Amino acid sequence: MPGIHETRRARLAALVADQGADFALVTRLVNVRYLSGLASSNAALLVGADGTAVLGTDGRYAGTAARVCPELECVVDRDTAGALGSRASGRLAFEAHDVTVEAHRELAAKLEGVELVPLGRAVEELRQIKDEDEIALLREACAITDRAFDAVLPFIRPGRTEREIAVALERSMVDLGAERPAFASIVASGPNGAIPHHVPGARVIESGDFVTMDFGALYGGYHADMTRTVAIGSAAGALREIYDLVAAAQRAGVEAAVPEAATKDVDAASRDVIDAAGHADDFPHGLGHGVGLEIHEAPLLGYDKTGKLTDRVPITVEPGVYLAGRGGVRIEDTLVVRTDGVELLTKTTKELLVI
Amino acid sequence: MPGIHETRRARLAALVADQGADFALVTRLVNVRYLSGLASSNAALLVGADGTAVLGTDGRYAGTAARVCPELECVVDRDTAGALGSRASGRLAFEAHDVTVEAHRELAAKLEGVELVPLGRAVEELRQIKDEDEIALLREACAITDRAFDAVLPFIRPGRTEREIAVALERSMVDLGAERPAFASIVASGPNGAIPHHVPGARVIESGDFVTMDFGALYGGYHADMTRTVAIGSAAGALREIYDLVAAAQRAGVEAAVPEAATKDVDAASRDVIDAAGHADDFPHGLGHGVGLEIHEAPLLGYDKTGKLTDRVPITVEPGVYLAGRGGVRIEDTLVVRTDGVELLTKTTKELLVI
Repeated sequence: MPGIHETRRARLAALVADQGADFALVTRLVNVRYLSGLASSNAALLVGADGTAVLGTDGRYAGTAARVCPELECVVDRDTAGALGSRASGRLAFEAHDVTVEAHRELAAKLEGVELVPLGRAVEELRQIKDEDEIALLREACAITDRAFDAVLPFIRPGRTEREIAVALERSMVDLGAERPAFASIVASGPNGAIPHHVPGARVIESGDFVTMDFGALYGGYHADMTRTVAIGSAAGALREIYDLVAAAQRAGVEAAVPEAATKDVDAASRDVIDAAGHADDFPHGLGHGVGLEIHEAPLLGYDKTGKLTDRVPITVEPGVYLAGRGGVRIEDTLVVRTDGVELLTKTTKELLVI
Repeated sequence: MPGIHETRRARLAALVADQGADFALVTRLVNVRYLSGLASSNAALLVGADGTAVLGTDGRYAGTAARVCPELECVVDRDTAGALGSRASGRLAFEAHDVTVEAHRELAAKLEGVELVPLGRAVEELRQIKDEDEIALLREACAITDRAFDAVLPFIRPGRTEREIAVALERSMVDLGAERPAFASIVASGPNGAIPHHVPGARVIESGDFVTMDFGALYGGYHADMTRTVAIGSAAGALREIYDLVAAAQRAGVEAAVPEAATKDVDAASRDVIDAAGHADDFPHGLGHGVGLEIHEAPLLGYDKTGKLTDRVPITVEPGVYLAGRGGVRIEDTLVVRTDGVELLTKTTKELLVI
């Protein structure tokens, strides 16, 4: 039985053949990892339309490559693209969204009788639909994220700074088994809650604040992403109603996330709830995004996006409402679109917690 | 008096004029930060040969830009390169080592009557020589690194894993004021010490091990980089002598780091010591690198590198000797090349600590 990486490479080989190319030179490191299993800061992979593949990396990673992907021939050369490119012939498809103008010029100068053509985002498209091995890693990343939230909850109280809470969440995730945080955690309290990408700072949490926490664990290379907004001491005023609105919008988005749904319709299912309450302008970002080996990957969910959801596509659903100067609410889950119904990976309650 | 960023932009404008270009479009984010002060995940800067400048960023960073660089006109548009490019005319120099083939094609399609020409690494070259504001930030980053080493030293003992020590160092740096670790910390114990870029894992420290720790703090955007090797319980055998050899090589490298020295001669000063002891093949990397807004930046110090050191250039000096299967020693400082003698920024002792 072929291994998972061999199966992935066979899928890419079929796409390469469909494009009328002879080889694909994969240089985006996350794509090389997907197709070979090797995580490296310098690697590339040459895949032939006939399914053959050669890995390239430098001396620092040669031993790891031999252990992780022993089935692959490995060329050890610091100039991975040049070394692999010289093994190609005919039409060589390259990742034009990754290769710089300078690197392209250097590569072209080294190749004779090879025509460089764009591959497009072929590997990124393959990566959208996850296999069960990948979903298992994502499930564990999300479980760690849930547990860290539980562990840090007692620490979130008046007198703590945003930064202290962010550090506590990140340390808790690492203590619970994460490689590291999946991205720089957001903790936005009081009026800062109105800033979707607020950098946690020295602001001290006060009674009456709403606090939005957006964080996640990295596990086995896979990224969890969860947001919860809690109230400190009491929940009153405009944000109390906004919370219920965002929660309803989030439920509507999750319910719409079924195979064959257009991504813009999933966005609309959630956005319509917010629009109907008169807050259209207070939800200035897309509904969500794919997650996997990258924290943001295909598909993107937005009113201006194209594409459809499919079985086994993990996404986030994360509507928010932001009131400048007053604060905001965002609620986000990571989930997997499935033929037999959504699999929720982040399981922390979405009832408003008043702590 | 012009601000520091204005001074930097004026230097770039002079280079643009020297190249016969009319404008430079700076897209590398670290270069945009250097020239404007804005740290952003989506920004670009257009600098005219006449010294004028326009910043581009998206809505998420517009408020920050107004606060950080109020002297700059700011165009708010998600397509920062396209929006700024359309303000240029004549010859527009772009960063060919940053712009992808795809982005270049999209940019070229948007521009009429503008000729795209390569800028080269002009901003990276300007960044080599630091101003005193930058050196002050680097000094503090290194001081935090020293203090974290002191704080964690009692924790390094038999029974701890490499990963536990790495986490302790990183947490200590953050507790002492670092934004975050400057890079993924290396803790390599026993035979793992032979792997220059070892990823700290589950190996348990044993009495008699040598343990190499390579880590540093990020402070104000500037990266510290320090390596120390310590002995656990006792220091005997081949590595005891290797330690003295590497320490002598490191001193020789530091002493050679003077203005006008060729970078390959600085490398040679250290490498010759190791070669003379018969360990030429056991030192398989360059002597060091520039540090600043990036952990690795110009100049690179290696036997195959060109260029000279200059006053106010911060570099690392980090020779190592690695004995496969047995272990290794690396000793590294961050320092500033100065006309009146090296300023050592990492001050932790280089005497062998047996702990």
